[in-house]
Parts: sequence; C-alpha cells; structure tokens
Amino acid sequence: MRIQQEQKQAAALKAAEYIRDNMVLGLGTGSTAYYLIRRAGELVKAGMRLQAVATSRSSEKLAEEFGIPLADINEVSRVDLTIDGVDEIDPNFEAVKGGGGALTREKITAYYSEQVIWIMDHRKQVSRLGAFPLPVEVLPFGWHLLSEKIHGLGYAPILRVENGQTFRTDNGNYILDIHSPSPAGYRKLSDLLHSYPGVVETGYFPAVCSRIIVADSSEVLVIENKK
Amino acid sequence: MRIQQEQKQAAALKAAEYIRDNMVLGLGTGSTAYYLIRRAGELVKAGMRLQAVATSRSSEKLAEEFGIPLADINEVSRVDLTIDGVDEIDPNFEAVKGGGGALTREKITAYYSEQVIWIMDHRKQVSRLGAFPLPVEVLPFGWHLLSEKIHGLGYAPILRVENGQTFRTDNGNYILDIHSPSPAGYRKLSDLLHSYPGVVETGYFPAVCSRIIVADSSEVLVIENKK
Repeated sequence: MRIQQEQKQAAALKAAEYIRDNMVLGLGTGSTAYYLIRRAGELVKAGMRLQAVATSRSSEKLAEEFGIPLADINEVSRVDLTIDGVDEIDPNFEAVKGGGGALTREKITAYYSEQVIWIMDHRKQVSRLGAFPLPVEVLPFGWHLLSEKIHGLGYAPILRVENGQTFRTDNGNYILDIHSPSPAGYRKLSDLLHSYPGVVETGYFPAVCSRIIVADSSEVLVIENKK
Repeated sequence: MRIQQEQKQAAALKAAEYIRDNMVLGLGTGSTAYYLIRRAGELVKAGMRLQAVATSRSSEKLAEEFGIPLADINEVSRVDLTIDGVDEIDPNFEAVKGGGGALTREKITAYYSEQVIWIMDHRKQVSRLGAFPLPVEVLPFGWHLLSEKIHGLGYAPILRVENGQTFRTDNGNYILDIHSPSPAGYRKLSDLLHSYPGVVETGYFPAVCSRIIVADSSEVLVIENKK
C-alpha cells in the first residue's frame, strides 16, 4: 500500500513538470490527483502564477487548502492542462474513470483542455478494460427503470451506496456501477447507454489524453499518445 | 387565444378516453397537459383507480390539487400511458418539446411508457421542425464552454432566463435554447449534442408516440403512428 502511494506520488511529481507559468490548470480527483494538487500548491508558493479549475468539490477543497487560486469553469475561456488519475487504462489509452464519482466533471474538464495528462501507478494498466465496473452517472428521476433496462440487456448495474446512503455526485445525481459479462465492450456499452434518457455521462473515456505517466517500483515512464 | 385554449382542451378530453381503470398514467407538462390532468382528476373522482407519475413538479402539484394519487417513478414497474403536449411536430411524428423546461423527465417517462399520446392544437403541426428553438438540458458545470462550442458550430445557443434568473430544471440543470440556421437537422443536431459531455438531454423527440390528437376549430383528429 505504501509502495503504491509512493508510485502515485512519483507519477504526480513527474506530471507537475509540465505545468507552466500562467496556465489554467484542470485538477483531477482521487488519490493520485491528491499528490498533483499538493505539488501545484508548492509551485504557487514558489511564485508560479496558476489558476485552477477543480473537477470535484473535494479537489476544490484541497486546492484551497494548498493555496491554489481557483477559477469557476464557467468563467475561463480555456483550460491549458488537466492532470487526472484513472481507474483502468488499456494500451489504446482508453480508460475507465469514476471510482471517485467525479467522472462527469472530469470528462467535461478534459474535453475543454488543450492537454490532458493521466497519472497512475502501473497497476492501472490492463490489457483489456473490464475488471473495474463502468460507473455511469444517472438522474435520480427514473433511475430504477433504467437500471432494470440495463439489467435486461445482460449487465449487472448496482446503485452506488456510501456510508449507508445513496451516493450523490457533485451534480446531485446517482451512480450506477455496471458489471459487464463482456468486458471488451465498454466503448459500445457507453454509446448504447448514451442513447437512454436519464444517463448523464459514463466513465468510459476515449483516448483524450496527450500522454500518460506511469510509475512502478523502479521507474517513472512518460508515454505519449501519438494518435 | 381563447379558441386555442378550447382546442387544447378538446384534444385533452379526447385523449382521456384512452385512460383505463388501474393504469399507471404519465402526466405531461404544460398548458395542454393541464386539461388532461384536470380531466384525469374528474375520472378519479368518478371512481376510476389511477396512479400517476408526473413529468414535472408543476404537474405533480396539479395532480395533487385535482386529487390524483401520485406514484414515484422509481417505485413503479411500468407506465401504461403517458399523455403530453408538444411544441412542434412534423409529419413523421418527430417533435420538439421542452418549452416548459421539463423535456428530460418527459422523455424518460415516455421512454418507459407502453403507450404515448401527444395532444395539441393544430398550430403545433409543421411541415419541418425548426421554428421552435431546440431546448437542451445541460449541467451548470461547464455550460459556458459548451455554449461557445455550439456557437462555433454555427448555432445560436441562448441560456434560458426566467424572471431575471437563470432557469433551473427540476433536475437542477440549465437550459440552452438553440436557434439553428438549418432547421431540418434537429435529429442530427441532437445526436451531435449527445456526444458532448455536460449535455443531459435534448428536446428533440423521435417518433415515440403511439398516436397524436389534434384539435382545430372544427374537429378533433386522432392520427395513429403506424410505424
């Protein structure tokens, strides 16, 4: 566990080298992003001028704590660089995100970012997506009929619960974690889900990253997405 | 104006003839749906056993007022019949809805309904969709970048404002009303918008209705959707 934390931190520190003065920085969410936010705070303290857009209330809180000036995403004209973690990523840079429940804000922020860097310990790299269930943000209105519909297609959607309560995203919605008997098809499943009213966003991320940074016990690798 | 109200009412009364004992009834939203809800209340008073699912808080309130027993959409296993209005409909039964801002809940309810009836005065019938802007429900997070993106495609999105405040849907989101220079393409535009993170739902409705009921000054027409 401690080794994993060190790897996450190593990847985050490497990613921070891509941060430049005057950037609007998208801050990811989760345990790996935590180290990046902490490092960005050190850069601000050292005199770098940054503005940050947070992909969750929890990252917003961390940014405040570490002294990073925050901007409202609706008040910036661009995001220069977003650095975020992933839950699983395949060799084509397609990823599953949303274990922390921030998938929709993460996807929106990545979508409008000039550059996206995904950081991780090496255990997030898989040959095929699918061990991690696909998180899907859904409106509370009608979630149960939607869940039954998905179940009827052969999947096993589970309403996310946290501390005994139905989990709520920062957008006020629910998460269905979808376990799939055919793990290869997350892109197709995501497209299908998008056609159902009530689905806000899925945690399947196409290859929107510019590069990934992966740490294992011996090294930190920067892998460019050349597509 | 009074004639239009009479036509809406005539269409609603005709639609109410399709309501049967023990149905779970989806209640639409808006000025035409108002007459249907009022009529359903009379049927309940006359002894009919109905349960209603409302597509908006305003329709929920009307149902309470008219004494119709309400059910939570997450607690029913089916919706038998949904009766709702439209803002515009073409000869292929494709429609634009959402002038009242309830488009997402309307679409969800219609999606899970065994039967859907759309009721209207004859002025809602058009040869091509497009005079009515396309309402799109979007997350508040990132709406401005999304609006700029849509603007860059050649459309004119306008954030809906009501009584000097940004309009909020019952789901807590915003509405962009999209004016299009090429009115024929609402289906294509809707598909495109669905690919952008932050878009919750569009007011373009494919031909999900079983029939439409149209009133003009001389008659009430029931037109079956045979597709």
